[in-house]
Amino acid sequence: MKKELKLMKGNEALAEAAIRVGCDAYFGYPITPQSEILEYLTKEAFNRTGMVVLQAESEIASINMIYGAAGCGKKVMTTSSSPGISLMQEGISYIACAELPCVLVNVVRGGPGLGTIQPSQGDYFQSVKGGGHGDYRLIVLAPSTVQEMVDHVKLGYELAFKWRNPVLILTDGALGQMMEKVELFPQMERTNEIFPWATTGKTKERERTVITSLHIQPDKMQEINLHLQKKYKEIEKEEIRYEMINCDDAEIVLVAFGLVARICQKAAQLARTKGLKVGVFRPITVFPFPYNEMKNLADNMKGYLTVEMNAGQMVEDVKLAVNGKIPVEFIGRMGGIVPTPEEILYAIEEKFVGAAV
Amino acid sequence: MKKELKLMKGNEALAEAAIRVGCDAYFGYPITPQSEILEYLTKEAFNRTGMVVLQAESEIASINMIYGAAGCGKKVMTTSSSPGISLMQEGISYIACAELPCVLVNVVRGGPGLGTIQPSQGDYFQSVKGGGHGDYRLIVLAPSTVQEMVDHVKLGYELAFKWRNPVLILTDGALGQMMEKVELFPQMERTNEIFPWATTGKTKERERTVITSLHIQPDKMQEINLHLQKKYKEIEKEEIRYEMINCDDAEIVLVAFGLVARICQKAAQLARTKGLKVGVFRPITVFPFPYNEMKNLADNMKGYLTVEMNAGQMVEDVKLAVNGKIPVEFIGRMGGIVPTPEEILYAIEEKFVGAAV
Amino acid sequence: MKKELKLMKGNEALAEAAIRVGCDAYFGYPITPQSEILEYLTKEAFNRTGMVVLQAESEIASINMIYGAAGCGKKVMTTSSSPGISLMQEGISYIACAELPCVLVNVVRGGPGLGTIQPSQGDYFQSVKGGGHGDYRLIVLAPSTVQEMVDHVKLGYELAFKWRNPVLILTDGALGQMMEKVELFPQMERTNEIFPWATTGKTKERERTVITSLHIQPDKMQEINLHLQKKYKEIEKEEIRYEMINCDDAEIVLVAFGLVARICQKAAQLARTKGLKVGVFRPITVFPFPYNEMKNLADNMKGYLTVEMNAGQMVEDVKLAVNGKIPVEFIGRMGGIVPTPEEILYAIEEKFVGAAV
Amino acid sequence: MKKELKLMKGNEALAEAAIRVGCDAYFGYPITPQSEILEYLTKEAFNRTGMVVLQAESEIASINMIYGAAGCGKKVMTTSSSPGISLMQEGISYIACAELPCVLVNVVRGGPGLGTIQPSQGDYFQSVKGGGHGDYRLIVLAPSTVQEMVDHVKLGYELAFKWRNPVLILTDGALGQMMEKVELFPQMERTNEIFPWATTGKTKERERTVITSLHIQPDKMQEINLHLQKKYKEIEKEEIRYEMINCDDAEIVLVAFGLVARICQKAAQLARTKGLKVGVFRPITVFPFPYNEMKNLADNMKGYLTVEMNAGQMVEDVKLAVNGKIPVEFIGRMGGIVPTPEEILYAIEEKFVGAAV
Repeated sequence: MKKELKLMKGNEALAEAAIRVGCDAYFGYPITPQSEILEYLTKEAFNRTGMVVLQAESEIASINMIYGAAGCGKKVMTTSSSPGISLMQEGISYIACAELPCVLVNVVRGGPGLGTIQPSQGDYFQSVKGGGHGDYRLIVLAPSTVQEMVDHVKLGYELAFKWRNPVLILTDGALGQMMEKVELFPQMERTNEIFPWATTGKTKERERTVITSLHIQPDKMQEINLHLQKKYKEIEKEEIRYEMINCDDAEIVLVAFGLVARICQKAAQLARTKGLKVGVFRPITVFPFPYNEMKNLADNMKGYLTVEMNAGQMVEDVKLAVNGKIPVEFIGRMGGIVPTPEEILYAIEEKFVGAAV
Repeated sequence: MKKELKLMKGNEALAEAAIRVGCDAYFGYPITPQSEILEYLTKEAFNRTGMVVLQAESEIASINMIYGAAGCGKKVMTTSSSPGISLMQEGISYIACAELPCVLVNVVRGGPGLGTIQPSQGDYFQSVKGGGHGDYRLIVLAPSTVQEMVDHVKLGYELAFKWRNPVLILTDGALGQMMEKVELFPQMERTNEIFPWATTGKTKERERTVITSLHIQPDKMQEINLHLQKKYKEIEKEEIRYEMINCDDAEIVLVAFGLVARICQKAAQLARTKGLKVGVFRPITVFPFPYNEMKNLADNMKGYLTVEMNAGQMVEDVKLAVNGKIPVEFIGRMGGIVPTPEEILYAIEEKFVGAAV
Repeated sequence: MKKELKLMKGNEALAEAAIRVGCDAYFGYPITPQSEILEYLTKEAFNRTGMVVLQAESEIASINMIYGAAGCGKKVMTTSSSPGISLMQEGISYIACAELPCVLVNVVRGGPGLGTIQPSQGDYFQSVKGGGHGDYRLIVLAPSTVQEMVDHVKLGYELAFKWRNPVLILTDGALGQMMEKVELFPQMERTNEIFPWATTGKTKERERTVITSLHIQPDKMQEINLHLQKKYKEIEKEEIRYEMINCDDAEIVLVAFGLVARICQKAAQLARTKGLKVGVFRPITVFPFPYNEMKNLADNMKGYLTVEMNAGQMVEDVKLAVNGKIPVEFIGRMGGIVPTPEEILYAIEEKFVGAAV
Repeated sequence: MKKELKLMKGNEALAEAAIRVGCDAYFGYPITPQSEILEYLTKEAFNRTGMVVLQAESEIASINMIYGAAGCGKKVMTTSSSPGISLMQEGISYIACAELPCVLVNVVRGGPGLGTIQPSQGDYFQSVKGGGHGDYRLIVLAPSTVQEMVDHVKLGYELAFKWRNPVLILTDGALGQMMEKVELFPQMERTNEIFPWATTGKTKERERTVITSLHIQPDKMQEINLHLQKKYKEIEKEEIRYEMINCDDAEIVLVAFGLVARICQKAAQLARTKGLKVGVFRPITVFPFPYNEMKNLADNMKGYLTVEMNAGQMVEDVKLAVNGKIPVEFIGRMGGIVPTPEEILYAIEEKFVGAAV
């Protein structure tokens, strides 16, 4: 089959992928810099596959519609940007507890508050530690190209249904707006599979299905928590994804996810032209986080430099991975500002080589 | 002056403290296990001090009323329990960015989801890492007695106004329901101080005040972020509070906050009767977190055992503090179940002494 | 073609008719005694025709989704019962002003307030005089059989699209729950007609379409009002529907709509056995109201007796029709209670024959 | 005591009256042309009397807060303009059924829909026939001067508490914005009267009070309806208020409420200079409506001309009053346009004198 290549904006590519993966329903509310997703789906989805696309009353309505529709065993998606995702935290905790599959997308903008509409990675903690209440985990994918904006939708649904767990695609306003050539996967069938856990209506052949996150008895609630924690451990064993670029001989390794990882690659190249052995470690899943891989790599290195578009969030996970073996440094930009390769190079020299020239 | 001692439930004591500290307004929505706060205030507050007490339409309405009223420079409070606090995450991020003082209270119940109404510490990450979006921090106080439920209200407003930052009192359903003798501080005046940053109406004498968290220009948003981060560093320098119990000669130190710290004290006593030198480190502020104090203490110890009513959250901060110097172990209970001293003792023996008998 | 006869509940028959008429979308929120409509559609609609069926966040969300979807030129429906319809009054006024076609259904229950779940006609005024603000009119159809519950859905969409006006089917809890044999019309195609007034997206071939009910300039707003009033006058000329039963020789005519008209027929029969010449006038459209037909009939009569399940609402329209020519009496029951033929007979005798025996 | 005269805008005068009458709480949401009420109260009320003034989340929240606070036996008020009042219809029906006293204010703007912000009387039907569901009635006061905007607040609370019924002040955008000299009544005490029907908390001395509008048993709901209807009949007997100006010898009488009645007075003067005996009948209460007074007056007249800022609403009540005795004509303006005395004079001549010159 011939490859289908297309020049697309990140947000539109993600929306196109949602249609092609056979999504059954999208519920969302507009917010910059991701409104193109809703707009694209509104125009394209229903006529092509019958996919329901609904602008809900609010982000709260959206996430609760996701809860309901996911409970029917359907492929459902919502997308928003930082403040909108904050509004969904209660619902996300419910869905995680009820173990329902769905794909959520956060096209992060600079915060806190209404902040700016420029790109940011300021929602890392919210995404991986749990912005909602209670001990739950999302599987968090961090695309760094428009191609991955497409691929992670497909991967997202595979993981969501495999583990019956919400998957969050953690991207940012720059990736959402950026145009790149993407290879699109062929249109997939919307399935009518009836899952045993889904509330599809009681028939003679099956038991009544109840989906809830309310378990008043502590024993029952403890049991559910133990089950969830066991599942998260398995996810940590099986689903870690990452990329190492020129790390074999590296003395200094830049750690970055998403868009920033691409800038780090450029910075590493600049560094190598100056004789500095610099590599890049890019977590693709930020939960589960590649703690062991990062720890093992540390054995023959001088130090890690974590680069983020925030005040320093993932750096805590890098430190937890390394556990004191080698220094873990941090450089970040905030307010919607993207760091440049030169800034990163400067930080490498300053922190690891001695006073930068 | 004679001390005023009273036997009170934690929730009621906290409500009484809110009246006495001269709170101007309370906005909230009922949820177990903290509805007594709203009920107590409804009955007592208005007639005694003119304090406005309002049951809002929802938790979202509550936090936005807090945003508005805090912007007027008033002493305002909302309280809720886990799912209700998740609903407030957008608003909390706005308030933190706008640098407004207020006191929020989370009487944590077992999650995730609707969970159980029993006590839990499952919202630690949400509280200290930021459940909302963007880089912001709450000052988080963790009372471990009904007395501290009272004292932290007073301390909370002092810190909130000193730093113009929201303060979260992170407590739990057991402390809220527990009756203990408390010493109440005397009724304070409600003040009519006009703060220069507050939106109290433009007069001839003063400039127009604008409170917002929206700053479209990245430069401006970066500036705000740098200012916030600088403030958080200062808070980390000045406001750390903690308690060390029998740590001088301790080889093993239990780390716990809130209610669990009391159980740890009992466990430590049991351990000492068995000849094990065990102490307790209780962070009172969990943000700012006593990283240095914990690191320094580690020099002459065998290991830390973090005890939490969750799947392991604060333990990450303990590990970050220790940075590999000594082992950091964890024991936790979930689903609203409170660990017993015996379980903790068993864990000490198992993890540090060798196979428990 | 063979007739398709089926024994069905009123609510389900109406839902089935919505599918068969080619409805594109249903938005609603459950409330007794009409929740079967949402339930039936949820089970049946999407798989048969791709019709979107959505349980919205509330009645307010429902009516605003109706506003949006009707603006796209789609066949859309919402249903509710009395309190739920009250919540929609703002939205209904917007839709009427924006001249959008849609079918609304009120399965009336006894009010005011939450009232009872038993049948009532207490929402007549709200339906025909305008429960919302401003001078607007709904076309209001009042079925009196399960068959008409079906037929009025088809008729409703014809009128709604012919006049670009919301149509209200005013029925009640008894008709909704009653089982009768109905003849169903065959499945109609969902159309893809692009209406010039609909917001279907600007293309090269067509002008931008704007749908709004906001017109700040009084001149413009007056023009819109004059246009609406002209339309309502035409509707009053062309669309009046009613039924007269044994009125040719009648000296006393019972006026009733909906379910009560059937009870009146029985009462008229009883009266005739007693030698009283009694007929029944049943308005099928209550807006437009058959004022002239009722006035003309009055010429050779002794009096009208209006029978309603309320405190006397349509009776005002009967009086306006008759304008003093002959007496207009009223008998009604409230609180969800349905009058019996005997009660009505008694009222006839009491009011027109002299003291009843 | 010296009279307190002040030049005030209608909206502000009404707000000032709310403070002086000893209102306990105001809940509202801003909408043109009545936002000055909320603004004035925000600035003035709390400091002067401790009156709670709260901008709620929406009009729905406002009316439900009114429901709750009125249930405590407090003097409560909300105000809005047409679309906002439509949003309150469910709540108003609940409050009417639960028989709670409160004062609601509709500063009517031109509709339907969002319409215009100019004045209108398009909400007459909604106000007097019941925009909400079920058989209920509001006592509706129609001020025609800024002075009456003040006086009707006082009268409103007297009637609301006397009859335990919501009172609606039906005014318009022109009266709200108009400045006139008013005489203010002196500040009244906020009372702490504990009403036997109010939910003020069960004590040893009193029975539990339950306020509800839900009565599932039809018998009970019928009983409540009969009680309400009986009350409305008594209100119709006791509370009718109206003004007749130069009607003694009038052959033609203009009927108008609110602002329009003043324009009618001017039109009547113009008519008299032309030799036409014209008077003005101004209902002050539009429910209860002065049916009998209008009927009796008709005996020696040629005809009524109803003048309204709408498409013809009160004219139906005038016709019901007259019941065919004499002609009842109508002239109206819509879209926020106020009729001029000349237009009215022209209509008098055209309709009653023969072709106007």
